[in-house]
Amino acid sequence: MRLLDDIADVGRDARRGGWSRHLGDEAEATLREWFTEQAARRGLVVEIDGNRNVWAWWGPPGPDAVVTGSHLDSVPGGGAYDGPLGVASALAAVDELRRRGVAPRRPVAVVVFAEEEGGRFGVPCLGSRLLTGSLDPDTARGLRDPDGVTLAEALGADAARLGPDPERLARIGCFVELHVEQGRALAPRGEALAVGSTIVAHGRWRLSFLGRADHAGTTRLDDRRDPMVPAAATVLAARAAMTHHGDEARATVGRLHAVPGGTNVVASRVDLWLDARGPLPQALVDDVAAAAHAAAADEGCTVELRAESVSGAVTLDAGLADTLATITGAGRLPTAAGHDAGVLAAYVPTGMLHVRNPTGVSHAPDEHAEDADVAAGVRALADVLEALCR
Amino acid sequence: MRLLDDIADVGRDARRGGWSRHLGDEAEATLREWFTEQAARRGLVVEIDGNRNVWAWWGPPGPDAVVTGSHLDSVPGGGAYDGPLGVASALAAVDELRRRGVAPRRPVAVVVFAEEEGGRFGVPCLGSRLLTGSLDPDTARGLRDPDGVTLAEALGADAARLGPDPERLARIGCFVELHVEQGRALAPRGEALAVGSTIVAHGRWRLSFLGRADHAGTTRLDDRRDPMVPAAATVLAARAAMTHHGDEARATVGRLHAVPGGTNVVASRVDLWLDARGPLPQALVDDVAAAAHAAAADEGCTVELRAESVSGAVTLDAGLADTLATITGAGRLPTAAGHDAGVLAAYVPTGMLHVRNPTGVSHAPDEHAEDADVAAGVRALADVLEALCR
Repeated sequence: MRLLDDIADVGRDARRGGWSRHLGDEAEATLREWFTEQAARRGLVVEIDGNRNVWAWWGPPGPDAVVTGSHLDSVPGGGAYDGPLGVASALAAVDELRRRGVAPRRPVAVVVFAEEEGGRFGVPCLGSRLLTGSLDPDTARGLRDPDGVTLAEALGADAARLGPDPERLARIGCFVELHVEQGRALAPRGEALAVGSTIVAHGRWRLSFLGRADHAGTTRLDDRRDPMVPAAATVLAARAAMTHHGDEARATVGRLHAVPGGTNVVASRVDLWLDARGPLPQALVDDVAAAAHAAAADEGCTVELRAESVSGAVTLDAGLADTLATITGAGRLPTAAGHDAGVLAAYVPTGMLHVRNPTGVSHAPDEHAEDADVAAGVRALADVLEALCR
Repeated sequence: MRLLDDIADVGRDARRGGWSRHLGDEAEATLREWFTEQAARRGLVVEIDGNRNVWAWWGPPGPDAVVTGSHLDSVPGGGAYDGPLGVASALAAVDELRRRGVAPRRPVAVVVFAEEEGGRFGVPCLGSRLLTGSLDPDTARGLRDPDGVTLAEALGADAARLGPDPERLARIGCFVELHVEQGRALAPRGEALAVGSTIVAHGRWRLSFLGRADHAGTTRLDDRRDPMVPAAATVLAARAAMTHHGDEARATVGRLHAVPGGTNVVASRVDLWLDARGPLPQALVDDVAAAAHAAAADEGCTVELRAESVSGAVTLDAGLADTLATITGAGRLPTAAGHDAGVLAAYVPTGMLHVRNPTGVSHAPDEHAEDADVAAGVRALADVLEALCR
């Protein structure tokens, strides 16, 4: 908890509330400095890879390393735990292993993955996707932030270094990510911890409605081609689709941008982003897209649909999950949130530990974990690392 | 047209298209410099008043002055004519009067009103409202731009100078504003010009929907209090209200802002702005507000409604309109767009001249006037000024 207190003032967002920490901003730089200093205090050797992931090594880097960690970036106006709890707990677990006098036989590393939330450039798990090669570096370089700045422009000369890093990936023997619970399943169970079982399929789709800008006062009904109208219909269609696709389905429009965005101007364009999750997110998206096309046609507008990121359902490594459950005594928990662990799971044995979130709220300032649960998480992670690194 | 060409590159908006020229930005400063230089070339004496309106005097300032002019600011991503056409035509009319050898017996002034569109601080006709005292200066100082900067902060020490200016107002004997047509009534009539008759009642209302930020993936339907859902329902209610309140009714949502605005975050708050116009805009707003409250309640959200500016219907001065019609031979035209002329009309005899817009589009880059119509507008304005200033 003291580690989290260290960074409590980094990236505070006075306008949105909570924290905003994104790739390339001042908060990211400060957090990387903080992590580097914390690693140095522990005698860990820090590497920053070409995809902006930061690695702190206890012992010589790989192969067959036991890797733990998470991310330090946030959604816009996010909470304090999603990401940083996993990084801080990893550092604290290293301290605990030292206290126990553990001498790892396998290399141990703490990793901070870059831009897990995709808060600036839209694609989540940017660092782990690039590392593993599941995202093409040219595509990544062309991603734009809300101001139109490309990732290539934001990174400058470093942009050339983006791309698959099979050598670094090959060092990872297994990966365990500790994460604050997202949702509220553990509080009713009275359990502080859970072992991750699955990650639901999820993705982000951008719908761009194109109409014609005009004067809000003078433009008659028949002359209007107002993209805000089909965009609004699509928000409601997303909600309807969520109710029709089963209990596990999620459909959310949390980001919507009108161009030019003047009060007295009929918009020329509205972009909205659909976050869809569930057993069959594509079927849900197809329903929403059909509604969007129909509403756009009614208004004389057009609509373009573009998948910005799509992640299939992930079952975390069964053997590793059994090991984590045996060591920690914790039950299993599926998650509907995306994680770097979900990306890595296709390449290396990967597991997750979830720490109870009494509010259930996540991606928002109310996200929380009690001190005692955080301590239990650190102990469990230390137990896991101790067992794995022998 | 050469005068408009001079400023064609000022405030170009690469992201939205068109031009964005707002109070306190670089474009405003450049345009003020340009106007000051143009006035100086013509031997006009420039004053900038405490409300950031710029006056260029031919002869000693007032009383009983014949004042013409318009504004140079734009909506975000607006067109090139709305505002600047009236200012450039006023300067060109002064040139024409000089060519004719007219020696005005009444003082003549060209005015540039500040922030007519309310593009930055939300309240339109800011300069004329403050000048006339129809907007309280303390209220004005507290207005915020989309980044949360107050007008007081933007103006610095100059903010103390905002407020009613009865002495300057008393100088105005009459005001004539030339403006590009907004809407497309003149092209079918085959007429280049029209005399303004009325300005429809209009206003801007902000609706703020308050919900609870949470994770887009993990938050179940029953736990959602997503303000985007009632906001979307309200956009559709505004469209429905426009269709139910008669041919003259207008209801537009061109600006909508979600907080925090993350793709994977259920929003905590959505602000949208309703631009409503017509014979009874308040009745329309009441209908939309009722729908907004119902939709918010369904989602467990709350909604706050706030009128940001409200302007009653204006009938421009009948005697002056007759004079303009007699001099120009033009027919009459009501307008559904707001103007500084609409603010001044409550204080001094005020008239308007509209110049045909062949596209009908306004507040957008397609806004247009043909060279020949612009020339006809300048001649008509010169004729009017010549007759009035004798």
